[in-house]
Amino acid sequence: MVKRTLPNQGEGPMKRHQVIFQPAGRRGEIPEGTTVLEASRLLGVGIESLCGSGKSCGKCLVRLESGSFERYGITSRPAHLTPFTAEEAKFIGEEKRAEGFRLACAAAVCGNLILFVPEESRSADQIVRKEACEREISLNPAVRLFSVTLTPPGLADPCGDYERLAAALAARFGLPERPGIDHAALAALPVALRKGNWSVTTAIWMEREILAVFPGQVDDTFGLAVDIGTTTVAGYLCSLTTGKIVAGGSLMNPQVAYGEDVISRITYAMEQADGLEKLRGTIVGGLNRLIRTVTAEAGLTPGHILDLAVVGNTAMHHLFLGINPRPLGLSPFTPAVHRGLDLKARDLGLDVHPGAYVHVLPIEAGFVGADNVGVLIAEEPYKRDEMVLIIDVGTNGEMILGNREKLLCASCATGPALEGAHIRFGMRAAPGAIERVVIDPQTREVSFKIIGQEGWRPDVPITGVRGICGSGIIDAVAQLFRAGVIDRSGRFRTDIAEPRLRVIDGNPEFVIAWPEETSLNGAVTISQQDVRNVQLAKGALYTGAKLLMKKRGIDRIDRVILAGAFGSYIDKTNALILGMFPDCDPNCVSSVGNAAGDGARIALLNRDKRLEAETAAGQVECLELTLMGEFQDEFLASMHIPHMEDAFPHYPLPEAP
Amino acid sequence: MVKRTLPNQGEGPMKRHQVIFQPAGRRGEIPEGTTVLEASRLLGVGIESLCGSGKSCGKCLVRLESGSFERYGITSRPAHLTPFTAEEAKFIGEEKRAEGFRLACAAAVCGNLILFVPEESRSADQIVRKEACEREISLNPAVRLFSVTLTPPGLADPCGDYERLAAALAARFGLPERPGIDHAALAALPVALRKGNWSVTTAIWMEREILAVFPGQVDDTFGLAVDIGTTTVAGYLCSLTTGKIVAGGSLMNPQVAYGEDVISRITYAMEQADGLEKLRGTIVGGLNRLIRTVTAEAGLTPGHILDLAVVGNTAMHHLFLGINPRPLGLSPFTPAVHRGLDLKARDLGLDVHPGAYVHVLPIEAGFVGADNVGVLIAEEPYKRDEMVLIIDVGTNGEMILGNREKLLCASCATGPALEGAHIRFGMRAAPGAIERVVIDPQTREVSFKIIGQEGWRPDVPITGVRGICGSGIIDAVAQLFRAGVIDRSGRFRTDIAEPRLRVIDGNPEFVIAWPEETSLNGAVTISQQDVRNVQLAKGALYTGAKLLMKKRGIDRIDRVILAGAFGSYIDKTNALILGMFPDCDPNCVSSVGNAAGDGARIALLNRDKRLEAETAAGQVECLELTLMGEFQDEFLASMHIPHMEDAFPHYPLPEAP
Repeated sequence: MVKRTLPNQGEGPMKRHQVIFQPAGRRGEIPEGTTVLEASRLLGVGIESLCGSGKSCGKCLVRLESGSFERYGITSRPAHLTPFTAEEAKFIGEEKRAEGFRLACAAAVCGNLILFVPEESRSADQIVRKEACEREISLNPAVRLFSVTLTPPGLADPCGDYERLAAALAARFGLPERPGIDHAALAALPVALRKGNWSVTTAIWMEREILAVFPGQVDDTFGLAVDIGTTTVAGYLCSLTTGKIVAGGSLMNPQVAYGEDVISRITYAMEQADGLEKLRGTIVGGLNRLIRTVTAEAGLTPGHILDLAVVGNTAMHHLFLGINPRPLGLSPFTPAVHRGLDLKARDLGLDVHPGAYVHVLPIEAGFVGADNVGVLIAEEPYKRDEMVLIIDVGTNGEMILGNREKLLCASCATGPALEGAHIRFGMRAAPGAIERVVIDPQTREVSFKIIGQEGWRPDVPITGVRGICGSGIIDAVAQLFRAGVIDRSGRFRTDIAEPRLRVIDGNPEFVIAWPEETSLNGAVTISQQDVRNVQLAKGALYTGAKLLMKKRGIDRIDRVILAGAFGSYIDKTNALILGMFPDCDPNCVSSVGNAAGDGARIALLNRDKRLEAETAAGQVECLELTLMGEFQDEFLASMHIPHMEDAFPHYPLPEAP
Repeated sequence: MVKRTLPNQGEGPMKRHQVIFQPAGRRGEIPEGTTVLEASRLLGVGIESLCGSGKSCGKCLVRLESGSFERYGITSRPAHLTPFTAEEAKFIGEEKRAEGFRLACAAAVCGNLILFVPEESRSADQIVRKEACEREISLNPAVRLFSVTLTPPGLADPCGDYERLAAALAARFGLPERPGIDHAALAALPVALRKGNWSVTTAIWMEREILAVFPGQVDDTFGLAVDIGTTTVAGYLCSLTTGKIVAGGSLMNPQVAYGEDVISRITYAMEQADGLEKLRGTIVGGLNRLIRTVTAEAGLTPGHILDLAVVGNTAMHHLFLGINPRPLGLSPFTPAVHRGLDLKARDLGLDVHPGAYVHVLPIEAGFVGADNVGVLIAEEPYKRDEMVLIIDVGTNGEMILGNREKLLCASCATGPALEGAHIRFGMRAAPGAIERVVIDPQTREVSFKIIGQEGWRPDVPITGVRGICGSGIIDAVAQLFRAGVIDRSGRFRTDIAEPRLRVIDGNPEFVIAWPEETSLNGAVTISQQDVRNVQLAKGALYTGAKLLMKKRGIDRIDRVILAGAFGSYIDKTNALILGMFPDCDPNCVSSVGNAAGDGARIALLNRDKRLEAETAAGQVECLELTLMGEFQDEFLASMHIPHMEDAFPHYPLPEAP
């Protein structure tokens, strides 16, 4: 894990104070000046922070417990935190303020403290939804094994070990006369040759570098395909001789602690002195944990991994490689590099075989990254005749449109709404999150199901609702529209009589889960602002698709492919109802799961596909949508549900009630 | 420096004892079971150990002080050391034993101890004698600087930084379209480009890999040539744009602590569990100190070094690279690799610029290493018409014989006598060592001079003699022969009346320095055994030259070149008197200093010479002398002074007195 240094204020010795987090009961000595959020991390308490200490998401609410606490031996006072700020006032009304609520990212420690972390501020472990597809992949890995038996040296033939091995490999397999040899492999060579009694198995990369030499006969070697998502990191451990996945695993990208989205992390890397190194260390630490987990699951060790292929969006790519991502956050959004890279895993801090390379797939543009290239080589739109739209709905929305003649791509600023952020009761896909919603068009009765519990409300009683995750939000808004609770412009129709539709302080909201169904001490609702945020997100996707179609000169899409962990969980009917993309035969809308991760696996197992990725990435034309003249008009029209003007012959609008 | 772990005996908590070394006064808590020698290293006390804890050199004598020492608060007893061993009895007679003498490498700590380290056991800092020659080197370094100014990116041209830089370098300098780029350089690229306002200077290796990118205009870059000798490590910091040496430095190879000669170190690496890693870490630590020293001297930092070229004998080469040297110590003496290597300096643990490569020169055979290849490309015998014999007299004696038509080489087991080991009063070239000796053929009066003091005895009074170093030993034996004190077979002529020639316990010896001239509490003498050891060494060299001449089919040498730190200090007249090599016109005998180090510098400054080294190393024919049938007879004849049969027309034998 990343090493954390405690901040120090001023010149003198660091003043420290007792800080206790409830209900977890974690306590420790925290240096003066540390924010409550940073203190929570130091003490291992999980507090949500979607904006990454940006004081802009309001998710990190904590409550100060004031008074003397004899059992803890401390007194906790409001004055033991830095003064209440204007930023906090945006999220904390007078009443809450009086109760002691603060933003953990804004308030810093000045004295002994007891803080309470309310249920809704606690971060939960996300349910990881990146599963590998079953795909036929033709096997031609970068790393292959070659076994040889050498004539032992003698006084008449004292030729060196490397030269002896190279000559045998050249004679037996037609490999180059003087292949490269990794330093670690060279250092191990004399012992391996003698231990194997002059029979060894070599692992050779791209037929040009000896990465490892094993005594005797070795029959299998392994590689790891990695998809570094903004939220989720997935790894597929594969045999390089059979191509089979021998173990898979995933974890939440631990950089989430420094900001939920790409922009927060770029900001963190830019603004903190050691921000880049912290983010890099964090993801590398996470990958090393993943490596240990998947190898252990397969009965192997990290040292068995002799090759890796990595995809990720441009920001994840840069942070993983320790490249300053600042230019990605500023116009013209230039990446440090486009081409695919072959780097030694050890140079990146990965604990695998010391000789192993990491192949990092190429990136297309500043915001169309290697993950999208992974989707490209997995779905191969450049080999198709039909006009295909591929939408990779992750924390960012990236799309590819076209066929063998020409491919266009773009990144859509969907915002984080589709993943539960900027939604009042939004949360990640974690236990307690509503993931499916159906609203009866006649009775407007709500059925839903949550992650971590079988069955639907009202068929089964549900009491543990903690919020709504992305797929639930799309369902809810689409179903609200279908049931006539919101109109095409997204406005709540407050004229209808419906007990679930209520107006609080002039703001309409629709109750999805009643207070007794939640663990939040209140109802889970969809507010007007939530609907607006979903409209912004779906409008961005629709606009992207529409502008790509215009640029491509087509008015009809033959096929829509929803990729990405999140894409796979979207209900395609609700997506069509909502107008997330232009009209398409529902039978030709499909989900392909984590195509980016599949792309990494394909590149791991077939080196020709690495070249194909390079070519494809170079040929795709990337559009900067916001620079197109028609963007604003298209975006406004796309905000309507399903669209202001466009026809949806495959899914006619419901009758206005 | 290498990390030292304290040994632990048994399962329980480690027992520790107070150990005090006098007269240095160093004290510390030492774990039970640690040898006195290892304890001295832990406490930073220098004790000579020529055999590397082999219990075979007898140099590491210490005296146990027994009794109660109130001022130290401890009692020191003989029983606080492990029992006296048979190996110690070889070096310590009854009388000395009674005085408390022990071998530091044999006795281990069992309780509190006070130990006295006598003057003759103290290791002294060696005078380092590896100076670079002034040579004309044509400049064509592997790393060159290329400065370019780029068109900044814009929304219409958002191409990535690497691709932008590569295109500009290709257009301006004809470099490859897609050069490699070091990971560290890539990580630094975005910041460098923007800091330099799109003007940068790149350091490019072999026109194929970008190692570094500096903002703005940079006009000079630096490289380090390194000669890792068994005893001395020399470094030459050179400008890669002018070729000039900007600083030079050297240090004793810190591996000396683990054994004076190559075989002791190979043994140490083989027999200790972490021996190889200790030896590797030790030399790398030493090189990093050297790097800091030479860069500071030139007003630079280690990060300014962007290229290195390294030579060293095969064992030093292997230990530096962390390659198990075991096969080098066993027939058929196979090295792990012959070819030259280009490795990242960071992979070897060297603290220089993170992108820098180390070029390690090729090696010829198991015991003819990269240092000899350095001599080859410095002296270029493969371009000469005359028949040249190059003798590199280091801790091992390596020689090359031939001309442009054919070159032969061999390694001679000279033993360490020529460097002062296995000589009773032998020592390294350090202050107090006799380095020059002249004996008047008539009066047999001895003149000598010591390192660290101007002038000759008896012209100036000298009192600080500590021993004799290699050049002094050669002088002494040659002069004893010239003065008729020893005969052609090397026997002392005890029939002559000479106060300096005395017989102790039946063993004749010749006094070079009287007791009052030394700091040793006794005279410095040359014994019969010392003469024998010099004969063995010079005989080995002569035999090597003779057998190479036979193999080459010649009976006359046109030129003798003495290379190596030690070679440069040999008095060539005394070398001819002694018969260190076959007859040659004294005007054609010359010293070239550290030709191996010069070879490293040449390879650093001219990449074509790296290829030349590869070709030359591959073409030289290496002979294993001891396998040649005539070896024994030749060796016996060569032991005579100057030789049993050979004529020396250029230097006739002195008349028998």
